[in-house]
Order: sequence, then structure tokens, then C-alpha cells
Amino acid sequence: MTEPLTRLQTRLAEITDLSYVSHLLEWDQQTMMPPGGGLGRAEALATIRRLSHERFTDPETGSWLDEAQNSLDGSPFDSDAASLVRVARRRWEKALRVPSALAAEQARAASLGQEAWIKARADSDFAAFAPYLERNLELARRYVDCFEDFDCAYDVLLDDYEPGVRTDTVSRLFAELKSELMALVATLSERSESVDASCLHGRFAVEPQRALARRVVELMGFDAAEWRMDTAVHPFETSFGTHDVRIATRWDQTYWPTGLYGAMHECGHGLYEAGVAPALDRSPIGRPDSLGLHESQSRLWENMVGRGRPFATVLAPLAAELLGGELSSLRAQALYCAVNRIQPSFIRVEADEATYSLHVILRFELEQDLIEGRVSVSDLPEAWNARFKAYLGLDVPDDAHGVLQDVHWSMGSFGYFPTYALGNLIAGQLWERAHRDLPRLDDRISAGELSPLRAWLREHVHRHGAKFSMPELLERVVGGPIAVTPFLSYLKAKLSGVYGVSL
Amino acid sequence: MTEPLTRLQTRLAEITDLSYVSHLLEWDQQTMMPPGGGLGRAEALATIRRLSHERFTDPETGSWLDEAQNSLDGSPFDSDAASLVRVARRRWEKALRVPSALAAEQARAASLGQEAWIKARADSDFAAFAPYLERNLELARRYVDCFEDFDCAYDVLLDDYEPGVRTDTVSRLFAELKSELMALVATLSERSESVDASCLHGRFAVEPQRALARRVVELMGFDAAEWRMDTAVHPFETSFGTHDVRIATRWDQTYWPTGLYGAMHECGHGLYEAGVAPALDRSPIGRPDSLGLHESQSRLWENMVGRGRPFATVLAPLAAELLGGELSSLRAQALYCAVNRIQPSFIRVEADEATYSLHVILRFELEQDLIEGRVSVSDLPEAWNARFKAYLGLDVPDDAHGVLQDVHWSMGSFGYFPTYALGNLIAGQLWERAHRDLPRLDDRISAGELSPLRAWLREHVHRHGAKFSMPELLERVVGGPIAVTPFLSYLKAKLSGVYGVSL
Repeated sequence: MTEPLTRLQTRLAEITDLSYVSHLLEWDQQTMMPPGGGLGRAEALATIRRLSHERFTDPETGSWLDEAQNSLDGSPFDSDAASLVRVARRRWEKALRVPSALAAEQARAASLGQEAWIKARADSDFAAFAPYLERNLELARRYVDCFEDFDCAYDVLLDDYEPGVRTDTVSRLFAELKSELMALVATLSERSESVDASCLHGRFAVEPQRALARRVVELMGFDAAEWRMDTAVHPFETSFGTHDVRIATRWDQTYWPTGLYGAMHECGHGLYEAGVAPALDRSPIGRPDSLGLHESQSRLWENMVGRGRPFATVLAPLAAELLGGELSSLRAQALYCAVNRIQPSFIRVEADEATYSLHVILRFELEQDLIEGRVSVSDLPEAWNARFKAYLGLDVPDDAHGVLQDVHWSMGSFGYFPTYALGNLIAGQLWERAHRDLPRLDDRISAGELSPLRAWLREHVHRHGAKFSMPELLERVVGGPIAVTPFLSYLKAKLSGVYGVSL
Repeated sequence: MTEPLTRLQTRLAEITDLSYVSHLLEWDQQTMMPPGGGLGRAEALATIRRLSHERFTDPETGSWLDEAQNSLDGSPFDSDAASLVRVARRRWEKALRVPSALAAEQARAASLGQEAWIKARADSDFAAFAPYLERNLELARRYVDCFEDFDCAYDVLLDDYEPGVRTDTVSRLFAELKSELMALVATLSERSESVDASCLHGRFAVEPQRALARRVVELMGFDAAEWRMDTAVHPFETSFGTHDVRIATRWDQTYWPTGLYGAMHECGHGLYEAGVAPALDRSPIGRPDSLGLHESQSRLWENMVGRGRPFATVLAPLAAELLGGELSSLRAQALYCAVNRIQPSFIRVEADEATYSLHVILRFELEQDLIEGRVSVSDLPEAWNARFKAYLGLDVPDDAHGVLQDVHWSMGSFGYFPTYALGNLIAGQLWERAHRDLPRLDDRISAGELSPLRAWLREHVHRHGAKFSMPELLERVVGGPIAVTPFLSYLKAKLSGVYGVSL
């Protein structure tokens, strides 16, 4: 290591520690903190964000970046050193445009907004939440105003969650996806009677559900020496380095897939963060930053594995054993059909694979309207409900089942939602590629052996951390850009089988 | 508020936020963190400590302290403003002497030491722990070397836990206490058959124990909106501001007082931190810093309330209801005698009130020997066991029941232990004073009404936070310095009754 690079790494390790601390503050807020702690938590988060931002944008960091870059001396693009400098410089140039006070204020408002959201959602009281959303929106607009080179305001926000991807690219992909999915949903909604999902409903105590989820995530790679699983209002995953991974899910005592698939989804995220190469620890490239790639991991495990026919062979006997009761004689084929029933519903995180992306596209469109001022906060519930009716054909009964269901806007995360649907598309591409590389993959999965898939993902995706943008990584792994077709082909093939129709 | 004071307050609020963050990192490490997280946690703690130290010792802080001091303009000693400047200046002058790198290294070594200790204690393997203790000791000596004006090295360490108190003061108090307690223990050990403690032993599942502890701490003031209770290897309390208080205890399935009194003890600490005046929030005087005063609160609630005759009237039926089994017919007087049985035992935190301070004095003497180099780390177990035999008459069976039992040295906390016995003495003084101010106190306690006592403590002790040193506060509340007599009088009166002898 040349000296300039070491100096830069030391500074960046410190910045990474501060982001670790922010993640712990947030994890605790969502899983452990008593409600009274909300105000103090917001101040602590704001202080950490401000210190981190000041430290990162310090002129010293800039000159160390320059020196480190000069010292690279032809290191290849995909080397750790060149990737570190490249990614750090990109973030540094963005951070430099944002005043520390604004960054701190965003952190404070996000923390307060989240506490307000928890209460507003429980009461289905959008009016109580509206001022916090207004505040987050105002700060997001001030954030956008810090930047210059963009086609639309949304580009600035999107780039924080999906570096290097522009709004128009997403709009094009989503236009294709939306029309295909709406047609698919329309076709299958007419046949909803042909799939029986009654085995998913009933009365299920939390402890057996937790035991089932635990068994399944352990098959995936959850290890109590380095992981935790807790309960939260909104399922999420975070990590503090590669050896301390935390997932949280929630439990529905009348519908057991909520807890299980929440846990599989978050465990998929966790495997990504746990699988980064140890050499990247305590560096800005030690944690994946493309949320589309991130979501491809969670969706791949949740849906392509968890709702796939091979894994039903593993899951059905486990559910029969642990949940018992009417499930005692659950068969794999029945389970497989039930968890792939297509039916428009209100809650995104519980949506089936065909309607899910429609939930996302709705949010993607609405948050552009919000940012551009085409829809006001007070008109948002109405706009939500109208669009929901148009895309999913349902009348939203109350805001808890509509505009208040997700945590993101309460935390000021605008531009985050589209990455969920991008994740579906990427998962389709990776799933196709993994099957080509691992011809016996389905057999292994139906034998409960998930490690070959995990190893393949680690090799091709996880270990790189944030070295590559999503387009760069896809180019390496599948040899092309993000695309709609593999996901749609996968989905149509599956649903053709489940519904016995040709799609 | 004059401007210079506001500027100082803003900086100090930021430093307070960083210490809040350190406390959360530590809380999580002790209650939630999977073992794999240890290395990353140590780095994060070191970074926070270094940043906080750099920020606090920044020359700006010094000039703002000067300006704020000049702006006080005759504010009385006990005003919030004068207290803030006085306490902040004292800490600043100490911090200025310590390099940031050393402060960071102490934090890192403390975190690593604690992880090593958990394992070594479980295996009773002192040799595995010794290198960590060596490292902590070396850092403590380097820390002492940063200072100049002290009579002995231990003065420097003690001052961090008991500001304004010197080693020779403690030695004098402890000499008196030790001879009195050893005589008392000798007398009562001969009569150990006259007290039956069998109701404390048996088989007790964790959940009913937790329910009992929860009921009791709720009587004390635990409120789920602002508190949590968890499980840890070593019971402790921490808080993040006055509205987020965390206590942790441990459960012994063969001896139920461990969990209950652990919870009462930590809740006593929690009430102190929850009771600080809201105006002091996010300031260096917003969290009590005399550990002797702190321990007076925990010991007062654990022993003077929790093991007192009036509260036995409340506790016996609760234990009968919740623990059931052989305890179903537990009577108050039987419980009262059982929990006040005097019998030398190995574990400090489970010791009775007469032997407890002897455990502490042993540690106080040994850690002076360690710091001064009179005892080496490798000789420590032997020195511990010899002194234990001399003071408590027992042969230590293994290091887990001896030198490895406490977390403190693993965290580099040398100078902390004496505050436990000081706490007993202060509790004796406060208990005497509270009874004079609240003549019906015992009646209220036996009726389960603990709020009058809590209110008295809040008024006289809690609300002041760290405004006053322990000697200053005692002068205000009891009109004199710390003294041995009230505690001994209280203890002898109680034990005379329990044992039916005149002491």
C-alpha cells in the first residue's frame, strides 16, 4: 500500500464507522427503543450525520483522494484500490454540494418522521402524519437544489439509491413492465378460483411462526454467532460490518406467510451484506449501495427460492411440523400453488409476484408528482387511491392500507421505491444465469441444499460490495444491461404451471 | 441566555450526543450483539471516543468556556449555567491532558476486553483473559502518566468515577468500615443456623421471575413508555437521555433473588438518570457522574427498600402469586429474615449487606496493588484468593467465582469499585435523612406506595444531575461529609432484629 492510499483509507474507515453507528441508532429505534426515546434519538442521529458529513467533506479528504488517485498507477478498474478511490470520489463530489446542516436536518426529520408515522399508521391518521411528510419533502427539494447536472429533480434522488441510473431508464423499463403485468393480472384474476390458498390462513401463534422462519433462514445461511432476528413494525435488514447482521420481520397471527417470507426476504439482504469480501471491511465499498442489486437478492430468495416448486418440497413438511394443526398434512404442491396465487391486495410487502411491481410503479409515479409539486401532500391520499384503483382494481379502505403503509417517506427516502421493482428484474436475470451455471440447482434446492446458490451469489455479486454500480455488475455477470424479459419469462412460466394456462 | 453560553452549550450538546452513542454501542454489545460483532464494535467505539475527545479538546471549546465563564456575571454556584461551565471546565482540563489516540485505544481495548472476559469467565480461564487485562492496565498507567498533580496514581483513576474525592479519604472510611464489618460478620456467622433462607432456593423458571421483577420495578417507577428491561451477563443500567432508560439483569433458575434484586438495583440507577431535570438534557450535567451517589440510589432501592421489613409485606404476596409452588404460602416475616441472612459467599453482586463492602474493599486494595505494580497480572488470582480467605473466610473454588466474576477490569475500569461501598455509606445517610423528612415513610412502603420516596430522592438528589460533586451534594442534603456511622447503625439495627441479638 502506498502511503497516500493508507491515509485516505484511515479517513474513510472513520466515516464508515460513523455510518455503522447511524445504522445501529436506526436499528435500535425500529426494534428496541421505548417510544419516549424518539426526540433524543433524532438529535443523536443528526449529530452523527453532521459530524460524518463535515469529516467527509473536509478539504483534507479531497486532497487525499487526489493523492490516492495519483498513486494508483494503473491499478485495474476492478481492483480494490481503484474501486475504493472511484466510489469514494463519486460520493465525495456529491456530499460536497450538500451543507452539513442540511444533512443533519434530514437525519433529524427522518427520525422524527418515523416515530410520527408509526403512530399515524396505527391510527390510520394521515392528517397527523402530513406535517412530517411536508417537512421531509421540503428538505428533499432543498437537497435537490444543491445539484446542477440532472435532467429532472428525481434523477438526483434516485442516484442516492441506484447510483448511475437515470429516471428515464427506469420509466422505460417500467412502462414495459406495467403493461405486461396489468395484462397478466387481468388474465389471472378471472381464474382466481382455480388456486386454493386456504392453507395460508387460520390462527398461528407467534412462537411457532418464529421457529419456522428461523429454521428456514438457517438453511439460507443465518448463523446465530453473527446474526440476529427481531420484530419490527416494518421488516428490514441492516448490518454493522460483515459479522453482525440484523434482520427483523413481523408476524401476522392469521396469515403465516407474512412472517416467513418477511424473514426470507430480509435474510436475502443479509446474505448480501455478510458476503462482502473481508478485505473491504470498514471501507465505503464494504457495504452494497445499489438498492436494485440489494433487492434482487431479497426477492430472489423470497420468491424464486421461497415460492418456487423445488423449495416447496422442503417448506411443506417444515410448516406441517412447526405450525401443526390444519397444516399437519400440508403437501408441497398445494403449498406451491397457494403461495403463487395472484390476487390484487393492498399491502405491497405482502403482494404476489405479479402485482408487486405495480405497487412499486404507483409509488414511483406518485413520488415524482410530489417532488415536482404536481400533487400536494394534502391531495396525496386521494391520488394514491385513484391510481391504486386504476392499476390494481381495488378501493383502498383506509390510509393504513394505502398511503400510510410504508415507512420510506416518513424517513425522507424519496427515490428508493423504484429499486424494489428493479430488483425483481435483476433477480430474473441472475436466476436465469445461475441456472445456466448450476445445472442441478433445482435438485439441490429441493434437497434443502441452499449453499450452492448462496456460493454462486457470493462469487458473482456479494463479494464485490459497492465496487461496481448495478449496470457495471450486470455487464460482468449477465453480459448486458438490466432487462424486463428474463423476469417476465420466469413469472409467466411459473404461473402457466400453477394456473394451467398458457401465458 | 447570553451568546457565548449558547455557543458553548451547542458544542457540549454534540459531545453529549456522542457519549449517548457510546452508551448505545455498549448497551447493544452487552444485551443484543451476536459474538461475531465484537471486532467491528471495538472499532466503532474507538472512533466515537476519538472524535468526541478531539471535538471536546478543540481549542475553540476552551475559548468558549472562557467566554461563557465571563458571561456568567455572578450566577450562583448552583445555577444551571454556572454548574455547566464549572463541570465542563473540570472535564475539559482533564481531557486536554489525554491524547485522543490514547482515549480511542482505551475504548477499543475495553470493548475487546469485555468480549474476551465473557468467554474467559464462562470457561473459568484466567490465562485467556490475562493479556487483555495486561493491555487495559498498561493503558491505565499511560493514562495516569498524562496527569501531574496527585498524591498517588490511584487518585487519577478514582477521580474519573468519584470526582473530587481522594484515595486517602476512601482508605480512611474503608479502614473503619472493614473492621466493623468483619466483626459483625464473625458474630453473625456463628449464628447462621438461626435464620432460614430455604424459601429463596428451588427451581424457578425465567418467565415468572421476569414477571415478578417487572411488577416490582413498575412499583418503583419503571414505565414501558420510557424504559426497557433486558438480560445481560452482568446486570447494568444505562440511559440515552431522561426518556430512554435501559436496565438489564440476569436470572438464576435455582435462586430467585438474583433476578429480582438485580432488577431493583438497576432500576434504582435508572430512576436517578430518569429523574434529572429536563432543562439539563443534552448537556454534560444531564447525567449523574458521581458513581458513589449513583450506587447510593441502587443500593438504597435494592437493600433498604427491597430487603426492608415494610416492603416484605408487598413482596411476599407477589412472590407467592408469581413464583408459586413452594412459595405459595410465603410470609413477609420469613421472607424478610431470609433475604437478610448474613453468610460469606463468592459473588459480590449477590452478597448480603454485611459482607458486600468487604468484597469491594478487597478489590479496592487489589487494584491499587495492580496499578502500582505490587501485584502482577499473573499473580492476581492467587492474591485475590488469599485476600478473600482473610476477609471472608472462604476458599475460592475457581476463578469464575473469584477474580473473573466482574466485568469492570475487562473494560479498563480501575478506580470504579470503591464507589460501590461509598454508595452503601451514602445510602445510609440519605435513608436516615429521608425518614426524618417523611415520618410515615415505612407505612407508605408497606402499602406498596414507593412514590413518596422516589419524589424525595428526585427533589434532593436526582434532579441535580451532575451539577454537584458527591461531597457538595451531601453537604446540601445531610449537612456534612460522607460518613460510616449511619450505614452501620442502620445495618446493626436491622440485623439485631433479624438475629435476635444486640449488635
